[in-house]
Amino acid sequence: MIVVLKPDAKEAKVDALKKKISELGVKINYSKGTDTTILGLIGETQAIDIHKLRSNEIVEKVIRVQEPYKKANRAFHPQDTIVNVDGVPIGEGHFTMIAGPCSVESEEQIVGIAKAVKAAGAKILRGGAFKPRTSPYSFQGMGPAGLELLLAAKKETGLPIVTEIMDLSQIPAFDHVDMIQVGARNMQNFTLLKELGRLHKPILLKRGLSATMKELLMAAEYIMAGGNEDIVLCERGIRTFEVATRNTLDLSCIPVLKRKTHLPVIVDPSHATGLSWAVESMAKASIAAGADGLMIEVHNNPEEALCDGDQAITPNQFEHIMQKLKQYAAIEEKAI
Amino acid sequence: MIVVLKPDAKEAKVDALKKKISELGVKINYSKGTDTTILGLIGETQAIDIHKLRSNEIVEKVIRVQEPYKKANRAFHPQDTIVNVDGVPIGEGHFTMIAGPCSVESEEQIVGIAKAVKAAGAKILRGGAFKPRTSPYSFQGMGPAGLELLLAAKKETGLPIVTEIMDLSQIPAFDHVDMIQVGARNMQNFTLLKELGRLHKPILLKRGLSATMKELLMAAEYIMAGGNEDIVLCERGIRTFEVATRNTLDLSCIPVLKRKTHLPVIVDPSHATGLSWAVESMAKASIAAGADGLMIEVHNNPEEALCDGDQAITPNQFEHIMQKLKQYAAIEEKAI
Amino acid sequence: MIVVLKPDAKEAKVDALKKKISELGVKINYSKGTDTTILGLIGETQAIDIHKLRSNEIVEKVIRVQEPYKKANRAFHPQDTIVNVDGVPIGEGHFTMIAGPCSVESEEQIVGIAKAVKAAGAKILRGGAFKPRTSPYSFQGMGPAGLELLLAAKKETGLPIVTEIMDLSQIPAFDHVDMIQVGARNMQNFTLLKELGRLHKPILLKRGLSATMKELLMAAEYIMAGGNEDIVLCERGIRTFEVATRNTLDLSCIPVLKRKTHLPVIVDPSHATGLSWAVESMAKASIAAGADGLMIEVHNNPEEALCDGDQAITPNQFEHIMQKLKQYAAIEEKAI
Amino acid sequence: MIVVLKPDAKEAKVDALKKKISELGVKINYSKGTDTTILGLIGETQAIDIHKLRSNEIVEKVIRVQEPYKKANRAFHPQDTIVNVDGVPIGEGHFTMIAGPCSVESEEQIVGIAKAVKAAGAKILRGGAFKPRTSPYSFQGMGPAGLELLLAAKKETGLPIVTEIMDLSQIPAFDHVDMIQVGARNMQNFTLLKELGRLHKPILLKRGLSATMKELLMAAEYIMAGGNEDIVLCERGIRTFEVATRNTLDLSCIPVLKRKTHLPVIVDPSHATGLSWAVESMAKASIAAGADGLMIEVHNNPEEALCDGDQAITPNQFEHIMQKLKQYAAIEEKAI
Repeated sequence: MIVVLKPDAKEAKVDALKKKISELGVKINYSKGTDTTILGLIGETQAIDIHKLRSNEIVEKVIRVQEPYKKANRAFHPQDTIVNVDGVPIGEGHFTMIAGPCSVESEEQIVGIAKAVKAAGAKILRGGAFKPRTSPYSFQGMGPAGLELLLAAKKETGLPIVTEIMDLSQIPAFDHVDMIQVGARNMQNFTLLKELGRLHKPILLKRGLSATMKELLMAAEYIMAGGNEDIVLCERGIRTFEVATRNTLDLSCIPVLKRKTHLPVIVDPSHATGLSWAVESMAKASIAAGADGLMIEVHNNPEEALCDGDQAITPNQFEHIMQKLKQYAAIEEKAI
Repeated sequence: MIVVLKPDAKEAKVDALKKKISELGVKINYSKGTDTTILGLIGETQAIDIHKLRSNEIVEKVIRVQEPYKKANRAFHPQDTIVNVDGVPIGEGHFTMIAGPCSVESEEQIVGIAKAVKAAGAKILRGGAFKPRTSPYSFQGMGPAGLELLLAAKKETGLPIVTEIMDLSQIPAFDHVDMIQVGARNMQNFTLLKELGRLHKPILLKRGLSATMKELLMAAEYIMAGGNEDIVLCERGIRTFEVATRNTLDLSCIPVLKRKTHLPVIVDPSHATGLSWAVESMAKASIAAGADGLMIEVHNNPEEALCDGDQAITPNQFEHIMQKLKQYAAIEEKAI
Repeated sequence: MIVVLKPDAKEAKVDALKKKISELGVKINYSKGTDTTILGLIGETQAIDIHKLRSNEIVEKVIRVQEPYKKANRAFHPQDTIVNVDGVPIGEGHFTMIAGPCSVESEEQIVGIAKAVKAAGAKILRGGAFKPRTSPYSFQGMGPAGLELLLAAKKETGLPIVTEIMDLSQIPAFDHVDMIQVGARNMQNFTLLKELGRLHKPILLKRGLSATMKELLMAAEYIMAGGNEDIVLCERGIRTFEVATRNTLDLSCIPVLKRKTHLPVIVDPSHATGLSWAVESMAKASIAAGADGLMIEVHNNPEEALCDGDQAITPNQFEHIMQKLKQYAAIEEKAI
Repeated sequence: MIVVLKPDAKEAKVDALKKKISELGVKINYSKGTDTTILGLIGETQAIDIHKLRSNEIVEKVIRVQEPYKKANRAFHPQDTIVNVDGVPIGEGHFTMIAGPCSVESEEQIVGIAKAVKAAGAKILRGGAFKPRTSPYSFQGMGPAGLELLLAAKKETGLPIVTEIMDLSQIPAFDHVDMIQVGARNMQNFTLLKELGRLHKPILLKRGLSATMKELLMAAEYIMAGGNEDIVLCERGIRTFEVATRNTLDLSCIPVLKRKTHLPVIVDPSHATGLSWAVESMAKASIAAGADGLMIEVHNNPEEALCDGDQAITPNQFEHIMQKLKQYAAIEEKAI
């Protein structure tokens, strides 16, 4: 951590600051230039409060050199993490397909889609029971009944299930869910993250709408700090000024996250673009970019979907995309 | 609502779509040009699912003409709402000052600050008991004990209190809190918003880090749809590419929100800039822009604050700002 | 074009507005609902000034339904454009590799790199002679002498050359350049675009740092309106809040632009990420996403490059990436 | 400047890097921690190429501690600069009003508006002769004839004039213009900036649509490096995800720029919001925030304006705003 002092800092104040910093258990490297004086803090700086230092009257700025996360940090955990979702691996060497509808609507619908996507090659079934809708007047999901139908679809097909949690009060209801999804809007719901850190269950953590990669990793760190290290990160588009797509899919986050962390990274091209006809190209781009899997919205009848029909593809289209992805997986030497 | 059809849409499909739309209870105005055919939907369009329409194969795009919110909409509620916080009004004609520390640290601290800001002219005391921190290794707030200390400070000074809730499980603990704050990261925690809609208590709703004004109003609509219409909106900076300030304070949201809604709008210059020395100018700019009040972080010893010390001002600085604001309030004919 | 009127618009004013609009040569479809009255404008609306309509006192908002560009619009020109750069095609069916250093530094450097990238499969040589640097104290490019060296490299290798123009006064000097690059910062230099529209020479038009796809297409329209229709669009990253990459590469622009326009679209992964180690994954993702080619920075000695060394790859790394891209091109059935 | 080395950097490579850096004329402060090794570069670091350092194989990251600009930097020039525009001062102690139409349309129009705004208190006349329009099919300005009409209006009223230049080839035509405006889209037209640096004439430099404050100051530095130090900075809104306003007016840039530079800062609320009814509140907020003046679009007949009529106010509205601003100026003790 680098502390840049103001040019006119009095020596007595500098000494007082150095003393205060020493008490935090780090070593100080003092360097005085003509225009700038710098304190280099060496040691365990993760727990130092950067805002507190900045509020000191002689401090010009404070720059963090080390990443503020430890457990999610590849530097301290070089080997790739492979997350096991009821027998299905996500991580290095695999390219795992997750598919299913935006929301569970009926047993016939979810079981039908589950069978279709399994036949095409999906390994995990997705489907929403609790839906975060921007309008209180929109369909809010089936709730607990939706979870039941997901379990029925699992029984029928053997596919593990992933579904979104919206509040920590729902945790007991998610007992039989194989992987719990934390949606983009909950990525910094720290109270929820802490509770999920106490579970022994894989978490699918979606990047927030305007979250930096560092913040995504800090959200993962929240869960991991509690003891649960089975986390899959998911890029789903960030908010920019562009309006032709719902969000801007940030595929360059894949090589960057792969350097910064050992956790697997998957992509949700459906929510990222909001355009069913852009899913195929973004799915292929994701595997090419180094992603560990995809989460794709598939609906048997998008025109009648109760939620986000404009971004869902049909089982036929999914089957076609799978064929393409298998060719890409062969080049990248990944099991799909 | 405008539905633009694809140029090559077959007549039979157009008729089928028109029939389906009619069943939603709206009238259709059909207009066919050389390049573009348009369906104008007239009537109660708020509940129509725009994604479903877009997923129809002959639809090119769907454009919403009316705002998707009703209860928060000034068009249906022209008169300004004045929210009463245990006797303190927020809204048209008033300029209400809310002040206090980022987080409650001790009885001495919170009571001391409360007395100081009251003496300077603050009408409501703020202070965090549950803190949403980006790092799991940072101070997370005093929790329920912090709420107790806030109540002690209220008892001592008579100032109503506002403090942030982080999860709906905390609602019972907020029983004696005068106004519940929903933080930026929870603006789209729809489960929480619904619960708050069932309370009879003012809600301070902060704009999300990357929320549009429309989304802010939809979040308010969530609470209002449940029956609780005492909502104060709070601009606290949005996320942009600029890095010299923590966020970019969007003061132009004030005249725009004032046109779109009847709810009061206040500003938090402390979180917006993250710079204690920018608070004064942004405070003055807020009242000039038409805000109904301010929420400012004040700490008796910013250098030792357990949270966000770099954006807090001292009671002396607060007193100085109040003097300036009183001059501005006189010009704008507002009670301060 | 849709004109939404204010709810309280007087009939006389509405009639006056309708008369004024009729004089613009478009037909009006009038539709009056309970809350909203709408005028649908049918016909040639591209030239109508949306700001002028909006300034009318009874107008609530104006929404453009048709795209404001014509010549760049796929709706009026369904067939893909293939741009010919001195014999090298860019467009459908081809995947064209452009490579070379950020800036030309010496004959030895540019000829050496040209030979190396040609051997690996590059079809066009890039290299900057005039450099837009953010600091006046940085190396500003070799200027005209740099253009000479590029021509020498072309003579040696036969590779057509592309290089950036910074001002219309430089046009005569670009007489022998095969394709003129308009940089991101000049995408809306309308004076320059107009002049380029008078040339008979391919233009490589880079997307501005914060340009929407619509604005990129309007910039192309500026050039095309002058008569020059040989334009290649280039995605090179947009500006967002993310700081881990120099810009955010928006690969979803490829399927969207492919729908909206007939012009070829290539990607510059070097400037987009600013990270040499992210070039390979983004290059592969680009071809997977449907791009028509790539522009990659290659330097024989990145550590000594006079410009942007941190994003350049070596000829060896380029050769390795080409091998990978050939496998991808085979799947996508593109000539590389 | 801080150079953070990779954890596994070999000693020989570190020594080589240190030697190379020493040759740049700066001193090195070496500090080795357990996880991180840091080189602190002390001295004249402005001219060091950060990209070149980053491309070194043992370098993890490079962080600039000092600002990269010198002449625009308040640290080296503590006193406020007051720019003299043909007798009208802009800068500390003054609040200078610039007003006029988006574009010059006729002698009657520009002279009429000039008289009206002068009567209300404007000190400088604005008006566009060359217009940067996003569509090639929109009115492009009157060109040189427009400059003639501006001079006629100056002759009639005595108001100095400011108008926008679009290309360096227009410089001779701007000989009698009192202040040359560089528009947002040209803020990084470095070729133009260099030429303007050779003039002895005030420059009004508008912030780019997605320019950081640092980039705005670097653009000023480009001009100042050439010898022309009479620069007025202008905030005119930045591009964000918000769509309810044309841009997001970043008023917090005022206190920040005032700390970083000695140059005056004015605000253009008309282009920032694109909403004529938001101009008053943003004008008042600007003076409250510490701006040195305003540039406001005024049109005698906004509904018939050839350009941006929706953001223009009438002379009557301008007169009303001036009354308000005079009250604010009295509080802030500024000459208006």
